[in-house]
Amino acid sequence: MAEALPRSPLAQPLPTLVPVAGVRLGAIAAQIRYKDRPDLMMMTFAPETTVAGVFTRSKCPGAPIDWSRAALAQGKARALVVNSGNANVFTGRAGILATQITAASAARVAQCAATDVFLASTGVIGEPLDAERISAAMPALHDRLSADGWEDAARAIMTTDTFPKAAIRKTRIGDTEITLQGIAKGSGMIAPDMATMLGFVATDASLPNEVLQSLLSRGCNRSFNAITVDSDMSTSDMVLLFATGQAGNTPVTSAEDPALAAFREALDSLLLELALMVVRDGEGASKLFSVRVTGAVSDDSAKRIALAIGNSPLVKTAIAGEDANWGRIVMAVGKSGEAANRDTLSIAIGGTWIARQGTVVDGYDETPVVAHMKGDEIDIMVDLGLANGHARIWSCDLTHGYIDINGSYRS
Amino acid sequence: MAEALPRSPLAQPLPTLVPVAGVRLGAIAAQIRYKDRPDLMMMTFAPETTVAGVFTRSKCPGAPIDWSRAALAQGKARALVVNSGNANVFTGRAGILATQITAASAARVAQCAATDVFLASTGVIGEPLDAERISAAMPALHDRLSADGWEDAARAIMTTDTFPKAAIRKTRIGDTEITLQGIAKGSGMIAPDMATMLGFVATDASLPNEVLQSLLSRGCNRSFNAITVDSDMSTSDMVLLFATGQAGNTPVTSAEDPALAAFREALDSLLLELALMVVRDGEGASKLFSVRVTGAVSDDSAKRIALAIGNSPLVKTAIAGEDANWGRIVMAVGKSGEAANRDTLSIAIGGTWIARQGTVVDGYDETPVVAHMKGDEIDIMVDLGLANGHARIWSCDLTHGYIDINGSYRS
Repeated sequence: MAEALPRSPLAQPLPTLVPVAGVRLGAIAAQIRYKDRPDLMMMTFAPETTVAGVFTRSKCPGAPIDWSRAALAQGKARALVVNSGNANVFTGRAGILATQITAASAARVAQCAATDVFLASTGVIGEPLDAERISAAMPALHDRLSADGWEDAARAIMTTDTFPKAAIRKTRIGDTEITLQGIAKGSGMIAPDMATMLGFVATDASLPNEVLQSLLSRGCNRSFNAITVDSDMSTSDMVLLFATGQAGNTPVTSAEDPALAAFREALDSLLLELALMVVRDGEGASKLFSVRVTGAVSDDSAKRIALAIGNSPLVKTAIAGEDANWGRIVMAVGKSGEAANRDTLSIAIGGTWIARQGTVVDGYDETPVVAHMKGDEIDIMVDLGLANGHARIWSCDLTHGYIDINGSYRS
Repeated sequence: MAEALPRSPLAQPLPTLVPVAGVRLGAIAAQIRYKDRPDLMMMTFAPETTVAGVFTRSKCPGAPIDWSRAALAQGKARALVVNSGNANVFTGRAGILATQITAASAARVAQCAATDVFLASTGVIGEPLDAERISAAMPALHDRLSADGWEDAARAIMTTDTFPKAAIRKTRIGDTEITLQGIAKGSGMIAPDMATMLGFVATDASLPNEVLQSLLSRGCNRSFNAITVDSDMSTSDMVLLFATGQAGNTPVTSAEDPALAAFREALDSLLLELALMVVRDGEGASKLFSVRVTGAVSDDSAKRIALAIGNSPLVKTAIAGEDANWGRIVMAVGKSGEAANRDTLSIAIGGTWIARQGTVVDGYDETPVVAHMKGDEIDIMVDLGLANGHARIWSCDLTHGYIDINGSYRS
């Protein structure tokens, strides 16, 4: 199916990718599900590499999620193995065994402990993953790893994605130049028989695990955890950040260290760029939209309201139809269950305030809003007029393409 | 738009409707929004009529919701006025004034207090409702009220509905024969520029307000509050139950009175029949599906899990595609945030157990499930294997029709 999908109209070109010191990577066709395309990706990392991770909050996570959570607790990363085509979810004891076989075969070629191997899988749910195919392919895969394998890696993890996703930042810690580079995949925020959101970022910075985790968790809250395509959370979502320490920057012991200001900003903007690529490749998406909520009782409340708007099928279909249907935004605020007061609510689209304090503005002229709705990127602002809580999320419209992709029989 | 929509393939014929002693009703074309069709409906009730109501939990309710909530607190009902075409929501002070004008004009012709008049509106949000058109039409409307106006009333409250919705039950309280009859409208659980869920039920039973409220609240939890079309809660949802007392049954003072057993059952099944008609007329619906969840930690938890499944765009598109994609059900359980354990989870479709205890059943044969998926009514069962909480909800599939109806510009 993935091959047949037309490239998203919101697709972005791949940037020029560079080596990240301490990272070697590549991909191979292991025939896991797809024919004649690389579906197994590996990265290896220099010995002192630190790692941070965020994982799906699903109560039914896949076996690779369990494995990588446990590996993260060990705090060291020497290898990452990702397969596409089979998510290894809801596969019981056979699924656990498949993660053990995969990690052991990777540890053998990478000459490390199995607990230093991270795993991710994406693809169909409920079918046993044939890990023997992975271990059989592992030696040949390891032989072809190189510092220049980033694009191959970005392509190997795709499922229903219509374009490969990568982003790069150059920044500094103190006087040391630092590289940050990452890849991601995802097209439905989730479509569990064929898609999942995965992100892998590497840097040559030297940073302790705790610092890395703090930076990643905060960055993901405003990027990967602030996007939605269809409100359906995957069983397999995972974002990992690896720091190889090869740049040799001066030691940093706290995420709040002023020396990290530029790095933090670079990481945040890289995570957001990758996350927005996932929305741009949202199944059937023709428009990207952002929802900014201000004046809420808390930031959390603002985010829940923003997500209620971003996930509303009626808001999403209105955007697909280029309809400035602000009544549906009122509805979504109302259904969120969060504190809101109809009579202090204001709504703007494309920077034009349509409603203020609970009613349409006097002499509201729809012309600039109609023009804005015809664009590729739609901007919605909601002010609740209650307090100072604010948040921003990104979503895409709901079109016939989504139904086409998800309403067809698995084949 | 409403006129152009093809009749739902899941539509049901109107039953033979009968008078309910103490109720007179009818409709008229008041030119509120639609041309050449009745869009204003009125019911009047005998002097001692009691009333119960349930309302939207939206934080941005329409002015008629505020009005009817206040009227309910007074506890007496002499009239109900419903207009279609304009929801009178997010209309500020002008909206409040419109409810006052409407209620006053109804009180005049019905010779009652304005606080005994209930109001409901459905239609576009954010446009001022011209209440003068309603009060101008009121005398002619009142003149044509009759005991036989039920079908006219059911048609007058339609918006994007593709068939009129009514249901009837005959039951007994003690030795007294009782009639229960109701009408409803709704097509999206909500589509705030043109649709809203409304239900109005009348009975000739004699029952105090508290008893009526208890029966209605409980009945709605298992019917109108257990259905979803698109997860979008309206600003205007309302179900009212009127009891005219004309049947002259022996007095009842508690909802738990054994004399009410048959009446309770009749009311519950009538509410469910009306609620399912709304799902059958769900925007774009081609299949009705039910989700039964057992083994949850509580009934509330079971209901939230059932709704997570029923609202999942991926589950809904799979059903549209006749795809027994049980991996998406696992995903929806996982994303619900409710207590669940992957390894005790079991899933059945059409009575066939597909997965038990966290993995697909040995030798699972998809044939009977594939056959079931081709039908109009799909049955999903999920057992969590944790405790005894259970719930059942109903939803419909997500098709191109939904996008067609909601992605087009308001016109």
